[in-house]
Amino acid sequence: SSAPAPIIATLFPGDGIGPEIAESVKQVFQAAEVPIEWEEHYVGDQIDPRTQSFLTWESLESVRRNKVGLKGPMATPVGKGHRSLNLTLRKELNLYANVRPCYSLPGYKTRYDNVNLITIRENTEGEYSGLEHQVVRGVVESLKIITRQASLRVAEYAFHYAKTHGRERVSAIHKANIMQKTDGLFLKCCREVAEKYPEITYEEVVIDNCCMMLVKNPALFDVLVMPNLYGDIISDLCAGLVGGLGLTPSCNIGEAGIALAEAVHGSAPDIAGKNLANPTALLLSAVTMLRHLELYDKAERIQDAILNTIAEGKYRTADLGGSSSTTDFTKAICGHL
Amino acid sequence: SSAPAPIIATLFPGDGIGPEIAESVKQVFQAAEVPIEWEEHYVGDQIDPRTQSFLTWESLESVRRNKVGLKGPMATPVGKGHRSLNLTLRKELNLYANVRPCYSLPGYKTRYDNVNLITIRENTEGEYSGLEHQVVRGVVESLKIITRQASLRVAEYAFHYAKTHGRERVSAIHKANIMQKTDGLFLKCCREVAEKYPEITYEEVVIDNCCMMLVKNPALFDVLVMPNLYGDIISDLCAGLVGGLGLTPSCNIGEAGIALAEAVHGSAPDIAGKNLANPTALLLSAVTMLRHLELYDKAERIQDAILNTIAEGKYRTADLGGSSSTTDFTKAICGHL
Ligand SMILES: CC(C)[C@H](C(=O)O)[C@@H](O)C(=O)O
Ligand SMILES: CC(C)[C@H](C(=O)O)[C@@H](O)C(=O)O
Repeated sequence: SSAPAPIIATLFPGDGIGPEIAESVKQVFQAAEVPIEWEEHYVGDQIDPRTQSFLTWESLESVRRNKVGLKGPMATPVGKGHRSLNLTLRKELNLYANVRPCYSLPGYKTRYDNVNLITIRENTEGEYSGLEHQVVRGVVESLKIITRQASLRVAEYAFHYAKTHGRERVSAIHKANIMQKTDGLFLKCCREVAEKYPEITYEEVVIDNCCMMLVKNPALFDVLVMPNLYGDIISDLCAGLVGGLGLTPSCNIGEAGIALAEAVHGSAPDIAGKNLANPTALLLSAVTMLRHLELYDKAERIQDAILNTIAEGKYRTADLGGSSSTTDFTKAICGHL
Repeated sequence: SSAPAPIIATLFPGDGIGPEIAESVKQVFQAAEVPIEWEEHYVGDQIDPRTQSFLTWESLESVRRNKVGLKGPMATPVGKGHRSLNLTLRKELNLYANVRPCYSLPGYKTRYDNVNLITIRENTEGEYSGLEHQVVRGVVESLKIITRQASLRVAEYAFHYAKTHGRERVSAIHKANIMQKTDGLFLKCCREVAEKYPEITYEEVVIDNCCMMLVKNPALFDVLVMPNLYGDIISDLCAGLVGGLGLTPSCNIGEAGIALAEAVHGSAPDIAGKNLANPTALLLSAVTMLRHLELYDKAERIQDAILNTIAEGKYRTADLGGSSSTTDFTKAICGHL
């Protein structure tokens, strides 16, 4: 036959429930005949006793070569000098934008209906510089770094995303009334990019006010773009509006076209290996990966199957108030394909 | 008669709707026979053309002398070098803790019931240091400063508040997984103080997770204490849960026993002078001032009258879905005393 060569994608199942939810993705992708072949690597807190390595060169190279990957939750290795693996991956792969679609799941009731927004977080600098020191005893300082290059890059990504995804508005979230120079530079870059997208409405919202508006009426927002820490806070807040991190996808965008999708919830060691985990966040993240690969049909089909399974309500994992196992929930999704 | 000498309190009515809502407080206090005499000073964006002053020494001295005051909304004077008046007052009066009770108003429906928490914000340092500079073209940095002294002081205030207000738990909100030194020092200070209050449960919650928990289930929290920027964000988020800044009180605590209560909403120039403003936030802030003065009976009586008026629903201002004027709403409150 003349089937096109499969796309190779990296898979980091991760720790705790990671392997189980990764298995769910593999099965759904197989059932949907997604032309992807997984290249699996272990990254996590199980340190190789010989090398003490928790992140191999091969793992990083795999993403760099394939340009596309999916990661499960990773626990941070305990011990001296181990930074969060998430941060290490962001840094090593230069994953400059974290994109988190956040929408109400039909049939899964929270206090909010019709949430449909995208947070786009600058992922490399700001308060995450790692630059901190003690000035004198009892006085410490952290540096927040904002650069023109990283701000333009994430703003450009946000506007491009808005345009190519039929979105109408980009809100830049900031605290430039206090951090006039750092957040001021971020806003200046957003304004520059906004000029190039006259069809997209641009607005600026102070972070405290943004959070108040989000909890009062999240429908006020469409695409939000912001510096690193605000993105960390607001993306979790938004996930909370629709049910939590177990239900929301995330995708990291790097230079040279790299996309590393990820479940942002924890590794839930308490239920690991018990066939109880909810694979939704990783599945929906895998869907964002398919969109990045422009496999739109497969993406829609799989997303619909996930949402329909949850909406139907017959098969739900315990965290969603049901009693299905991971495998039964996965089978139900495959049945909806 | 032998009535005790009245307590003198400073009043800054502020800009926009400030004078109208301040008038409402004066009337309610008079009707409730609160033994307070107001010493009124103008602070705001109307600059004295001769001196160019927008904040006089006399205004500051008034608070320092009286040790207790109430401020309405103030617009920031437009022009070179004018910092926010709020920040200037915090700095000049060393207002180190911002206390914001946040509770569901009976009869005023939002998405949340039974919210009843207190945010206590460090009010002098952190990201609000004002220290920022351009490192090279296109690279700027802001300094976040955390000191042992300010952290201990606000932590001590929070635990003391919890203890004296019948609260059971204090949650320190942080991002010490990223800012290990600055937020780490803040946590260390909270832990030290927690040791002295074995009857209060102490916990630490990462800010992103805290925001998610707050929107999912705010009843999980009791007293929250945190560095400046997190306090700015979370206090507004919490206000949003119960209806917004027009309904939530705020009080700033300074050294030497100073308390400056304030409405934290804006000056609403669009409706200023039209007898349309909602005085609730300023009234409830005035109530926190009464508690600070240990005038508990008056505080309860006035708070009940405000809450009962809103619950009854017959007299509500436009922002609460009613059509009452400021003066009619105020009269209704006086009627409920
Ligand atoms: C685990 C932590 C370091 C991380 C962050 O702060 O970025 C997480 O909260 C996230 O949003 O991915
Ligand atoms: C107006 C602004 C400077 C201020 C702050 O950021 O502290 C406000 O948001 C507040 O919370 O009082």
